[in-house]
Amino acid sequence: MSRETTTDLYEVTMALSYLREGMTQPATFDLFVRDLPPERGFLVAAGVEHVVDYLTDYRLGSEHIQDFASVLHRPPEDLEPLLGITFDGDVRAVPEGRVVLGGEPVLEVTAPLPVAQLVESYVLNQVSHQTALASKAARCVLAAEGHPVVDFSLRRTHGIEAADHAARAGAIAGFSATSNVAAAVELGLPAVGTMAHSYIEAFGPEEAAFRAFADAHPGPVTLLVDTYQTEQGVRTAAQLLRSLGNATGSAIRLDSGNLEEEARLARRILDAHGLPEVRIVVSGGLDEYAIDALVRAGAPVDIYAVGTRVGVSADAPYLDTAYKLVAYDTRPVMKLSTGKVTAPGPKQVFRRNGCEDVVALAEEAAPARSSPLLRPVVREGARIGPAPDLQHIRDRCVADIAALPGEARRITDPTPLHSSTSPRLRALTDRVRRHIRATYLPRTSP
Amino acid sequence: MSRETTTDLYEVTMALSYLREGMTQPATFDLFVRDLPPERGFLVAAGVEHVVDYLTDYRLGSEHIQDFASVLHRPPEDLEPLLGITFDGDVRAVPEGRVVLGGEPVLEVTAPLPVAQLVESYVLNQVSHQTALASKAARCVLAAEGHPVVDFSLRRTHGIEAADHAARAGAIAGFSATSNVAAAVELGLPAVGTMAHSYIEAFGPEEAAFRAFADAHPGPVTLLVDTYQTEQGVRTAAQLLRSLGNATGSAIRLDSGNLEEEARLARRILDAHGLPEVRIVVSGGLDEYAIDALVRAGAPVDIYAVGTRVGVSADAPYLDTAYKLVAYDTRPVMKLSTGKVTAPGPKQVFRRNGCEDVVALAEEAAPARSSPLLRPVVREGARIGPAPDLQHIRDRCVADIAALPGEARRITDPTPLHSSTSPRLRALTDRVRRHIRATYLPRTSP
Repeated sequence: MSRETTTDLYEVTMALSYLREGMTQPATFDLFVRDLPPERGFLVAAGVEHVVDYLTDYRLGSEHIQDFASVLHRPPEDLEPLLGITFDGDVRAVPEGRVVLGGEPVLEVTAPLPVAQLVESYVLNQVSHQTALASKAARCVLAAEGHPVVDFSLRRTHGIEAADHAARAGAIAGFSATSNVAAAVELGLPAVGTMAHSYIEAFGPEEAAFRAFADAHPGPVTLLVDTYQTEQGVRTAAQLLRSLGNATGSAIRLDSGNLEEEARLARRILDAHGLPEVRIVVSGGLDEYAIDALVRAGAPVDIYAVGTRVGVSADAPYLDTAYKLVAYDTRPVMKLSTGKVTAPGPKQVFRRNGCEDVVALAEEAAPARSSPLLRPVVREGARIGPAPDLQHIRDRCVADIAALPGEARRITDPTPLHSSTSPRLRALTDRVRRHIRATYLPRTSP
Repeated sequence: MSRETTTDLYEVTMALSYLREGMTQPATFDLFVRDLPPERGFLVAAGVEHVVDYLTDYRLGSEHIQDFASVLHRPPEDLEPLLGITFDGDVRAVPEGRVVLGGEPVLEVTAPLPVAQLVESYVLNQVSHQTALASKAARCVLAAEGHPVVDFSLRRTHGIEAADHAARAGAIAGFSATSNVAAAVELGLPAVGTMAHSYIEAFGPEEAAFRAFADAHPGPVTLLVDTYQTEQGVRTAAQLLRSLGNATGSAIRLDSGNLEEEARLARRILDAHGLPEVRIVVSGGLDEYAIDALVRAGAPVDIYAVGTRVGVSADAPYLDTAYKLVAYDTRPVMKLSTGKVTAPGPKQVFRRNGCEDVVALAEEAAPARSSPLLRPVVREGARIGPAPDLQHIRDRCVADIAALPGEARRITDPTPLHSSTSPRLRALTDRVRRHIRATYLPRTSP
């Protein structure tokens, strides 16, 4: 399926109309999250690199024209004004891994109006869901307080693409590994895995299953101990690990029941067998809330494996993102729809002291001791500089989160950070609003 | 990215151990949803056709062996037992579009143990999320009570694959169209679209924007009326539609504010302009709850466009699915993990009188007036018969939902339907449980 036809039909019909009217001057669109979900104190930007790849490859060929014509029930000739369109505009974006707040542009696209419009659907999709996943993953890392967190979400994400993005979002946020082989290979991440309950059941006795696994995989092993009855499973695992001689790097996994109690029991049994080096991995419906509860209870858990709830960002499965026209042909624009008012004009976000952010006009000078968050990533359709590597993105994320105030990092009931608006942006917003009311609305309007 | 490496690492390590032990007898795995989310009274099976395509194409080549070796940090020779593996087993599945309940197998895979294990992650992923999306979409169709529902979710789904699956899930459930061009082309669905607020803003005055759109797109148009102020927007649209002569098939779209009030206002204005044929489309954060409220209030809405909340199944973004070994080498197996006990043995679901379902052993005779839900779809690695077309799947879905009792179809607080278990399956479950306790557990266990 071609990515150029991965678009809402209205992008095509609008672009055709723009071309017909000769409206091909530069337009600027801001992509931002209106308000954070109540369960989030901050967001982590992600998806930008996929957007850059998409835009720099974008080209409408005759096969796309044919598809557009077919769904519009029009002759292909009517669609020919679109033929050969490439993305020849500029993009500024918040680098992936950086913290962003509600109302701040994550990405700003400036391109000929029809072009900037045509790419909307894909750009919104990628930044929205990848930012949602990275923000969720970051909270798991915070909750784990230094314990490794690993991604086990492949089986329950919304498709395979989403699984790969969940693995990447986890890596950005600081996860130590993923179970997803394809993602591990593509992204250069460590791959991890243990065994399923089915493995034990296929053998029948746990002892036989554990021994066969160790035979097939010399070196550290992780043994799943809760298939029949956890206490006995841990004892059987401990005996097997003792018999192997070196248990360094090996672990047992708990996947059901009261994980705090089971972890304490398992730790006692392992220690009693002289295996203090054997680690305890927990899994099964975990998210940042469950991790936080285990950490606060002092449960002797070494590694947290998160899956479904994190891979679908279950408590906030979408972000209220928008891709809004803020300027056309140098004229700042906005809409006044109830609850959806947008601020006009190309923008910049200036950050100082951690996350004291000011949303300002792009042309404004940076306030003292601040630095701009939006950086040029595409110029005239070409990528600026190489894609940053994942380690670099992760380092940025860790540094940004470390600088956040405690109330935004809190797992339960976080207080969302808010940016402020520069006086010049506020003044422009008022001026454009007054202009719209005076020019386009009847005098009786409020 | 290759689909063969889209797997959890543990599938690979388990398969290697099975091959080393010569454990290649047939294994049967059941894929089922443990319990329905509280917001669901029934589910609609989906994703089966993608699974069939995947399994019938599955082949582990040297490039996959190389990837497995690299993430395991082992020499490729160690992975060679996997080389050339294809899916050579059988699959029975609930046909897509059919209603399924908690605890009922949606799909049953029987294949040599390593093979049935290797395909787990992909199979679970596809059936889980597509069934979640189709079930959500079906509730929107129920809520709309005959009004068309269309899919606008592309911009907010968890990736592009998820968007295509959301469009397909909507079509299965009875949506009338999608905004997603690529999905419309691929699936042969009607594509629909209107215009964005940015379109109006680029022109400035609404009148100019509406006229330009009608000029570029002869025939019916849908005009977005809430960019600045809805009442005036509707009046401007009404004047434009009057001036076009024939307004049949045309519509206005409301995307913000109190949609019930705005729809009543818009209807009055359109009717006052002699435009009773112009329809009202509403969008903006809609789901089955919002549609239900509008329908119950008697709001004069003609078409419901659903996006984000439906495309991510926001109130139930995942299903509690499992892919569980139920038999190996003709021996029925189960696990006893707390809260995760599974029923052993290959199964069949017998349905009568709508959804009075009995989960039974596959070998049992069908109860009177019942028919089996699981049908063979793959035999010895080959697809059985052609893929059903989307219209056929949709017809099945509509018929199944029509036969559901009202309490399961209810939008708010639905009562989930439960299947019963045949006496023979109950007896087998008890026998296997006793056998496990007697054989694998110490006498002191409960």
